[in-house]
Amino acid sequence: MSTGTITWVEALEQRVRNVLAAHDLDGLRLLLAGRHPADIAEVIDRLDDDDKIRVFGLLAPALAADVLGETSREATRELLEQLPADKAGDLLDRLPMDDVAEILSEDVPERQQALLAAMEPGDAAEVRALLSYPPQSAGRLMTEKFVRVRPEMTAGETLVYLRHSDPEIESFTDLYVLGPAQQLLGVAPLHAVVTAPPERRLDALMQSDVITIAPTTDQEEVARLVARYDVLTLPVVAASGQMLGIITVDDVIDVLVSESTEDVLRFAGIEGGPELDQPYFSVPLARVVRKRVGWLLLLFLAETFTGSVLRLFESELARVVALSFFIPLLIGTGGNTGAQTVSTLIRGLALGEIRLRDAPRVIGRELAGGILLGLILGAVAFGRALLWGSSYALAGVVGLTIIAICTWANTIGALIPLIAQKLKIDPAVVSAPLITTLVDATGLAIYLLIAKVLLGL
Amino acid sequence: MSTGTITWVEALEQRVRNVLAAHDLDGLRLLLAGRHPADIAEVIDRLDDDDKIRVFGLLAPALAADVLGETSREATRELLEQLPADKAGDLLDRLPMDDVAEILSEDVPERQQALLAAMEPGDAAEVRALLSYPPQSAGRLMTEKFVRVRPEMTAGETLVYLRHSDPEIESFTDLYVLGPAQQLLGVAPLHAVVTAPPERRLDALMQSDVITIAPTTDQEEVARLVARYDVLTLPVVAASGQMLGIITVDDVIDVLVSESTEDVLRFAGIEGGPELDQPYFSVPLARVVRKRVGWLLLLFLAETFTGSVLRLFESELARVVALSFFIPLLIGTGGNTGAQTVSTLIRGLALGEIRLRDAPRVIGRELAGGILLGLILGAVAFGRALLWGSSYALAGVVGLTIIAICTWANTIGALIPLIAQKLKIDPAVVSAPLITTLVDATGLAIYLLIAKVLLGL
Repeated sequence: MSTGTITWVEALEQRVRNVLAAHDLDGLRLLLAGRHPADIAEVIDRLDDDDKIRVFGLLAPALAADVLGETSREATRELLEQLPADKAGDLLDRLPMDDVAEILSEDVPERQQALLAAMEPGDAAEVRALLSYPPQSAGRLMTEKFVRVRPEMTAGETLVYLRHSDPEIESFTDLYVLGPAQQLLGVAPLHAVVTAPPERRLDALMQSDVITIAPTTDQEEVARLVARYDVLTLPVVAASGQMLGIITVDDVIDVLVSESTEDVLRFAGIEGGPELDQPYFSVPLARVVRKRVGWLLLLFLAETFTGSVLRLFESELARVVALSFFIPLLIGTGGNTGAQTVSTLIRGLALGEIRLRDAPRVIGRELAGGILLGLILGAVAFGRALLWGSSYALAGVVGLTIIAICTWANTIGALIPLIAQKLKIDPAVVSAPLITTLVDATGLAIYLLIAKVLLGL
Repeated sequence: MSTGTITWVEALEQRVRNVLAAHDLDGLRLLLAGRHPADIAEVIDRLDDDDKIRVFGLLAPALAADVLGETSREATRELLEQLPADKAGDLLDRLPMDDVAEILSEDVPERQQALLAAMEPGDAAEVRALLSYPPQSAGRLMTEKFVRVRPEMTAGETLVYLRHSDPEIESFTDLYVLGPAQQLLGVAPLHAVVTAPPERRLDALMQSDVITIAPTTDQEEVARLVARYDVLTLPVVAASGQMLGIITVDDVIDVLVSESTEDVLRFAGIEGGPELDQPYFSVPLARVVRKRVGWLLLLFLAETFTGSVLRLFESELARVVALSFFIPLLIGTGGNTGAQTVSTLIRGLALGEIRLRDAPRVIGRELAGGILLGLILGAVAFGRALLWGSSYALAGVVGLTIIAICTWANTIGALIPLIAQKLKIDPAVVSAPLITTLVDATGLAIYLLIAKVLLGL
């Protein structure tokens, strides 16, 4: 996404800071009245801890709950921790239970139990049920509060029934037609019910060819299905056929945004984990360093192989020092080419455009692409080396090496994600830096071998 | 997103290929009956051109139109081109007009006019109106077919009115309450209308505090608003206050998926353009090479500076050949560190978590982070150099250089996206390879200067 701040939030933050500095609590209350919870949450996320608590403490319970559903995980935890358990439980009772499950999922067990005990027993039971599913599964995202109807109800009866439905229901877009054992028989869109003759029965109205998911389905698969079939809600159905809940499109959008963040960061070699999609300033520096240093160390150790390759050719390098001038250029070009290919492949695999059985076609294509890129860049490199006053022989070595490295980097950049996929490792962990590092060492070996032969070293 | 294919589509594709190979057209018709258009579209995307046309030609018009709305841009163009204009026009009439605008937006002007002339005049006028807005703007994504109601209507009257509404309306979730000049007065969610007493007037029911967007709003901003405020539709309102159309959440999901692809690819230095989010196999190889070679050449030329830096230190390198062994290691570590920072920053800026006024805080944070990372990696590098049999002095040079390079790469990786943002350039164009290349040349200069001083060269 391109950059941008929603300007009214920036203005709101400035005014909140001014009022806080003036210790004007009434002014602050006035300022926050009628604001959207998402906007207040963003301002709270950016305040210091003490100010976070001061602002949050001024909110009426209903608004406070909504805000709590929108603040960053770090801020939510801080705000809940400073509240007595009964007050925290009251706020949680007001939230959708899938949001509560997400908030509580990372709490320490004792605190989690204390908060659950402070909630209403029905809500707490729902949260416990959600928490029994694996993290990042459909079960964690779903809500049990959907509209249940019976197949023999008429459209007219349904409209009367809806007047008395649970006010906590999140989505009325689709009504779910269930059999006696709570098994899903079909879906009746609300607008179809509204526009049907009042005496029409729901089983005559409903669509019975419904896309459903299991509670253990990964949330990314859920997002892919919603994006693919343009649905607003997805029913979650147990293996027994019993309908457990629905997933709403707003949860899916959150998944898409956080997956996209995860992709970009992982691609740069920053490892996953739940804090990955947390706002920049909300993650303590020590944790950032811990998350980054692992990959850097791994790449560092891998990169020492390039040093070993160079040591093997110590005498050649000593004889023609000019050979070393081209090292960064050659490994840079190989790394960049490999990074392009690996990113294309990872994306294609993630979107299902590329499948394992396509491997030969993919490798053929990337091999051809690598040769073409190599020919273009190799010609430029040859000219550039001559301009630097290198001999024709050295310029030839550099040009040939570029062709070989581009071909090699393109092929390896295609091969490795495919192998990862085959081994059932998520190809996205094969970040660009890993390919770059691999290409560095092998590319240098190619370079110095070509030099050795052509220059007769 | 992690990888995965929807397995039933893979099975469908195999069966379609078998039936095509057997020239069994009736079997093919049978096979495709009742399939979801998105699944048929994916299969068509992956077939050869002739087979694409054969399969598409067998579909009934309504299904053919739905499939055409889901195929890749390349395939859609091919399928439309081989149809006579009147048949193509008939199919386009059946699609949502925002999809038609997207399909026609890249056609050559003559073909575009011919297809518009073959469509129904009302539909063609709507498409022309959409095409008058800038590409990737809200105006291009919206549909004019939404539910318009008047403030004095009662809930009961509204339900009767809905029975006779335009069957092409895409979304019934929200009803839009308009004044006499078509100005937006408020939004009445369908479920609120359904559950209200039948005599309640809409102006007593509706929410009048509505988030709206202008037709020129960028589609990424639209996606951000939908994600932020959890709405299913967004009304598009002209500066005059007149309501023009709505954007539905399924369009927003498509934007999120394609932006996320764009982010990942651009990050690896593959330039944008409309084909970027097209399926892997649907883009001709020559075009892929053209899209990739530009960046590679630019980076190549930038990387020649590292060669120039090395030439400046030719005599030092000739005296201590072992210095060159560490070149890939040092520039690799700098590049990896810089890539991590730049990706974090770009993401934070895109999500609005980091603002320009935060610049000093961000730079302070990244400077500190760089020093910490440098100290850890520098210690490891020192040990590794000793293990390789380097002298204490050389190992010290390498360790110190790592500290300096990490600090420098982290700072420059934060500074450059902030500068881009300040200059109103999208920071995402500052791809990781650019930072890597920058850090390569400067990092080597730091290395050789430290070596020169400490080793007394």
